Amino acid sequence: MARLVEYADAPPEVRAVYDDIMATRRTDWVNNFWKALAAHPPTLKRLWENVKTVMAPGALDPLTKELVYVAVSVTNNCEYCIQSHSAAARAKGMDDAMLAELLAVVGLANETNRLANGYRIPVDDRFKTS
Amino acid sequence: MARLVEYADAPPEVRAVYDDIMATRRTDWVNNFWKALAAHPPTLKRLWENVKTVMAPGALDPLTKELVYVAVSVTNNCEYCIQSHSAAARAKGMDDAMLAELLAVVGLANETNRLANGYRIPVDDRFKTS
Amino acid sequence: MARLVEYADAPPEVRAVYDDIMATRRTDWVNNFWKALAAHPPTLKRLWENVKTVMAPGALDPLTKELVYVAVSVTNNCEYCIQSHSAAARAKGMDDAMLAELLAVVGLANETNRLANGYRIPVDDRFKTS
Amino acid sequence: MARLVEYADAPPEVRAVYDDIMATRRTDWVNNFWKALAAHPPTLKRLWENVKTVMAPGALDPLTKELVYVAVSVTNNCEYCIQSHSAAARAKGMDDAMLAELLAVVGLANETNRLANGYRIPVDDRFKTS
Amino acid sequence: MARLVEYADAPPEVRAVYDDIMATRRTDWVNNFWKALAAHPPTLKRLWENVKTVMAPGALDPLTKELVYVAVSVTNNCEYCIQSHSAAARAKGMDDAMLAELLAVVGLANETNRLANGYRIPVDDRFKTS
Amino acid sequence: MARLVEYADAPPEVRAVYDDIMATRRTDWVNNFWKALAAHPPTLKRLWENVKTVMAPGALDPLTKELVYVAVSVTNNCEYCIQSHSAAARAKGMDDAMLAELLAVVGLANETNRLANGYRIPVDDRFKTS
Repeated sequence: MARLVEYADAPPEVRAVYDDIMATRRTDWVNNFWKALAAHPPTLKRLWENVKTVMAPGALDPLTKELVYVAVSVTNNCEYCIQSHSAAARAKGMDDAMLAELLAVVGLANETNRLANGYRIPVDDRFKTS
Repeated sequence: MARLVEYADAPPEVRAVYDDIMATRRTDWVNNFWKALAAHPPTLKRLWENVKTVMAPGALDPLTKELVYVAVSVTNNCEYCIQSHSAAARAKGMDDAMLAELLAVVGLANETNRLANGYRIPVDDRFKTS
Repeated sequence: MARLVEYADAPPEVRAVYDDIMATRRTDWVNNFWKALAAHPPTLKRLWENVKTVMAPGALDPLTKELVYVAVSVTNNCEYCIQSHSAAARAKGMDDAMLAELLAVVGLANETNRLANGYRIPVDDRFKTS
Repeated sequence: MARLVEYADAPPEVRAVYDDIMATRRTDWVNNFWKALAAHPPTLKRLWENVKTVMAPGALDPLTKELVYVAVSVTNNCEYCIQSHSAAARAKGMDDAMLAELLAVVGLANETNRLANGYRIPVDDRFKTS
Repeated sequence: MARLVEYADAPPEVRAVYDDIMATRRTDWVNNFWKALAAHPPTLKRLWENVKTVMAPGALDPLTKELVYVAVSVTNNCEYCIQSHSAAARAKGMDDAMLAELLAVVGLANETNRLANGYRIPVDDRFKTS
Repeated sequence: MARLVEYADAPPEVRAVYDDIMATRRTDWVNNFWKALAAHPPTLKRLWENVKTVMAPGALDPLTKELVYVAVSVTNNCEYCIQSHSAAARAKGMDDAMLAELLAVVGLANETNRLANGYRIPVDDRFKTS
């Protein structure tokens, strides 16, 4: 199991990232993912900058991005990621009905992905231009 | 490569599904996925009913569902599904900027899924209640 | 693309494996998988011995083993493996109806695998004893 | 962890599915998978109909279908699915020797899938016609 | 959970493999992986011979091989394999900094794999000759 | 297929990244991965900075990092990534024998990952401390 670096024990470069996480998210705590990455401060800083950039509002809204994150995590069966990003999605407005439909789409996509593979279906010309 | 059942050669039960696909989608053609499944008419009918139900507007809008479909297909590397659902997402309003952000989230989720696995990070108690 | 070692150009240790493949399968040709592995003769010999042992008739019959091989290859989307093991399954008796049902099971299993992950379903006590 | 809907607390549409599951399987209990899906009754009904149809005897016998289900679940590492479908396979006749051979095939297929990918082996012309 | 075959209860063919494992590794114990495979002695023997051959020093040194093993296991999210091969890598010289860099590469590769899939990037001609 | 942004057509922010890629790698060309990402300049810049940082010499040497990259790409079956990182690994010293051993380890790890899953093997206490 990962060794978790708590704020009280963290060197200044790690505290700076923790502070930015809490300020950006307007919370007063840091979740275990970051405490584990803090074992290697350059990775902690790099990943946090990536997450902050990629998950910010843009052409897609933050809730849609969290739903996509859950979809990928469910497909890969990452327990930690399913739970943390489901919580983030709920905080941004996902309710039970939305989760149920999300999982239905994820399940169906995983099924039809294999049917397309198994039947080795050629891509329609009309799709190639898109 | 899959044998594709064209409308002209299709038995009535297959034509009935093709007709429903075109009516539901308001198009005048059927893509290769369905023509391949038509080799086994019960599978064709079953899958179409699933897709029609799951992808209909509900708690999530149809564009969000297509974005999730693309995210799963990219994670699994299903070429046919990436192309067909990217085309469907574009038809529902996805532009280049949205696709770029979608792929950025998918890429990042696939990365952090492995970091969570590799560091074997324990799930925070706060996430377990969500 | 792999460099393929043809029989005429093969060193004796490779020819010996090719000869055993053809004798075991009662055919007069060797498929590309083995010609590619022949770039590293110890790998060729090791893999062929594994395949010969694992795919031999035993508690499961050879057709069932080929169906399982196709199921795994479709799940992983290995084009070469789907095609080669589908051909092997057909040679052992798989017909179109069996293939359609096989792919239906593979698709459904890939779907319910994700629903079980996404809902994080606890294993029933009754299953734990099995 | 999933909220499980028990029979006593279930609305009529959920009880109807539970009743059909028990009648079809000739058992007096319902496993957690269905109790979790019952959080969204349309998904419960849809998935049960799919499973009932796909897993029924047909061109492939029910045991072969369960073996394939286990093979996919092991490949995807779905703990719930491995345990529930291993139990189902045992109930249909799988013994320890069959399980051992099944896992041997699954392991080997996962290995050769990557060797085929890694060496980028071209598909033999003879396989393309099958 | 797997039934584990302890040395005291093992038949001679299993003890012979256990003895070889301990002799090869210069240890006085056998880890659970082998005790589980021992339920099917031919699989135990076959897998041990494969592992002994593949993981031996050759063109790649044993530490590099263990790092690759961890990378694959993290990508597939195999808990047992991550822990056992991380321990083996540490025994061969992997320290915390190496593990952190290894996981960073694994995470990044999983990300760019999906970007390459999602953008459907054509392979450069210069790479095809390599 | 991805639209590729050539240097001649690139805006200044894209050219700046291309220039840094060529300077860092001491080459006079840019491969298609970056030309595709250039459709979204912030993604291009972000990914290049990640790759430059992660793949730089550190606790692990650059060749080992490329071998790990190939191992992950083969496991995920990313054609572009297998070819581009195999070429990079060769440029850093990988020969045919090393590639053959690398693929042997990747194949075996993918096999034993599934055996560990399928037998549901409990992690040895001795491994948990590492």
